[in-house]
Amino acid sequence: MDKMHHHFDGPPGQEDMPYLLTPGPLTTSRSVKATMLADWGSRDVEFRRVVAEIRKGLLDLAGADKSYDCVIVQGSGTFAIEASLGAFCPKADHKTLVVANGAYGDRAAAILQRLGRPVTKIDKGDSAAPSAEEIAAALDADPSISHVWVIHCETTSGIVNPIKDIARVVKARGKACMVDAMSSFGALPLDMKDGFDVMVSSSNKCIEGVPGFSYVVVKRDMLVASKGMSHSVVLDLYEQWKGLEANGQFRFTPPTHALVAFHQALKEHAEEGGVNARGHRYRHNAQILIKGMREMGFSTLLDDNEAGPIIQTFLTPRDPNFDFELFYEELRLRGFAIYPGKLTKRPSFRIGTIGKVDEKVMKGALKAIKDVLAQMKVTDLSPLDA
Amino acid sequence: MDKMHHHFDGPPGQEDMPYLLTPGPLTTSRSVKATMLADWGSRDVEFRRVVAEIRKGLLDLAGADKSYDCVIVQGSGTFAIEASLGAFCPKADHKTLVVANGAYGDRAAAILQRLGRPVTKIDKGDSAAPSAEEIAAALDADPSISHVWVIHCETTSGIVNPIKDIARVVKARGKACMVDAMSSFGALPLDMKDGFDVMVSSSNKCIEGVPGFSYVVVKRDMLVASKGMSHSVVLDLYEQWKGLEANGQFRFTPPTHALVAFHQALKEHAEEGGVNARGHRYRHNAQILIKGMREMGFSTLLDDNEAGPIIQTFLTPRDPNFDFELFYEELRLRGFAIYPGKLTKRPSFRIGTIGKVDEKVMKGALKAIKDVLAQMKVTDLSPLDA
Repeated sequence: MDKMHHHFDGPPGQEDMPYLLTPGPLTTSRSVKATMLADWGSRDVEFRRVVAEIRKGLLDLAGADKSYDCVIVQGSGTFAIEASLGAFCPKADHKTLVVANGAYGDRAAAILQRLGRPVTKIDKGDSAAPSAEEIAAALDADPSISHVWVIHCETTSGIVNPIKDIARVVKARGKACMVDAMSSFGALPLDMKDGFDVMVSSSNKCIEGVPGFSYVVVKRDMLVASKGMSHSVVLDLYEQWKGLEANGQFRFTPPTHALVAFHQALKEHAEEGGVNARGHRYRHNAQILIKGMREMGFSTLLDDNEAGPIIQTFLTPRDPNFDFELFYEELRLRGFAIYPGKLTKRPSFRIGTIGKVDEKVMKGALKAIKDVLAQMKVTDLSPLDA
Repeated sequence: MDKMHHHFDGPPGQEDMPYLLTPGPLTTSRSVKATMLADWGSRDVEFRRVVAEIRKGLLDLAGADKSYDCVIVQGSGTFAIEASLGAFCPKADHKTLVVANGAYGDRAAAILQRLGRPVTKIDKGDSAAPSAEEIAAALDADPSISHVWVIHCETTSGIVNPIKDIARVVKARGKACMVDAMSSFGALPLDMKDGFDVMVSSSNKCIEGVPGFSYVVVKRDMLVASKGMSHSVVLDLYEQWKGLEANGQFRFTPPTHALVAFHQALKEHAEEGGVNARGHRYRHNAQILIKGMREMGFSTLLDDNEAGPIIQTFLTPRDPNFDFELFYEELRLRGFAIYPGKLTKRPSFRIGTIGKVDEKVMKGALKAIKDVLAQMKVTDLSPLDA
């Protein structure tokens, strides 16, 4: 077994943690993790400064002007999604249009249904991008739509949606534009001033922090108007915001270690060169990976002009010797955790190209994949369903 | 300035983290924090084993037999409280009785109100314990009460409520008994078989983990019956449980680092000698603290037979030179973070006696308090409101 021992900085027994080539949790830097070696008091002035700097840093990174504010929510990214849908989407008379092309759009629609909020959906399947023209036509056909929910990078396939064009047609019609930038924020450019009223992302994506919280950048007047709208106490963005504004504290115990780690991650994001540099590293990772995989014979789900630099979907090979569970486990033992597929129709698997990983890691992953395919005696890499 | 440099194991700039003498986040061991130096994949077999062992460990610690199961929820303790209230408390026809003697009972009642669930409250103010007789009388007077919510240690004052006696009268009447054991679980004995149907606690309390998640131990038949009851997708305990049971995975990204840290914290809890040993250390901490504070002239809110070993409430001294903000900050600079008061009527402050702290830390805190009082020229420590 050609095990790779790498980036080990933990106690005994953990030396085999693989690189996480997934949509998160990701591999983070040693210096980000090292900040978690201290216990911070959640009410202390230093911690409140950390929280304030995170909120300010996220607003800056999102190109938000003074009409926006940032609210942090405990839990995973879906917690901020549900909090935002519960705060801002109408309860009656009007409805929310969810632009879906994968599991995350479906999930947003399911949450609205659970909350009893009127919802309609444009469903593009799981590998086609929606166009601004389609959204415009849907809005023109149904004037009761007041809010639009779009996804920047749909990690079901890795596709990047044309959210800037969509925001333009949404705002031209005076509707609210909400974007799930979970897996893209910090690596793909996003400027709130381009017509985004609400943006949601989480701690363990392209800023390269650890999981534990998510955040919402939102027009302050929408926050103010959301008073009493939430179906929940813990997910009430208005009350969470009022708490943070009143004394810089969370209403309920924050994940202190994850926040301090994220503060460091934001610093390292800036030091690397911000969104452009991070996006560049990820694109480079993706290019190396895709090139190497194609050289072996794998096919990608998406064309290169559709695929983002976040996560790549490869079609499951036809060879009867290819067993994904074994492939996964053998790769993991070699130091690389990949990700199962999530397409409803085409058999596939995914490899993430984000996190504290670079060209060297991608080349290591390619070598490991080659070794495992040889071990499994897989030769025919043409798609199973082609 | 007599600064204490202690338990420092982090990067430069963090050497002044004080001991956290609060109800959480707490001071945790170096070995618990060190587990967070690795990035675990949330779908990998090792991580799923960690999650399974945590769930099993919590069930064992709660004395739960095979009729119970354990569900973990992302977020702070209040997230599991809201999830439990939303899953188990009736929507109509019946109601939930909240036994309140402080802010946490009030909060549970407020959550039920937000959820539109019928609720009635026994309100004991913020420093008196409810009796089993009172609960029995309330249940006999209103047969529509089907669920009772009680709090084990109410950290508003630190009082420990007679939950075993309460559970007995609740179960004798065939009602569901739900207990918020947030700040007590792992240090005060609690056996689910004594009549508790639901128990809620969190990662950053007496098990001495870091903040990031909370958990519910609950009768499996109640979980099954809760399908479709939740007002929320992310807080839906039934779906969370089904996800964990199906493949050992969370539905939404778990706080991997906090979970791995908690796994280590559970090991250290057992190594120390379990609930009895942990409770003994905390009681010893409390005794040293109370004795030392009384010797200085401070008064406690509660009599010794009411006060638990979790957090101690001291009455604000009458001396005009006593300024709590200054007192707090000077103590913090000496290495001890205490906690403000939360009583609605009596001016007070609190000092926690839980977390990875012992006699030596308590004596250090007492010495620091003495120094700060001298610096502030505070001499009259009799209660301000006496």
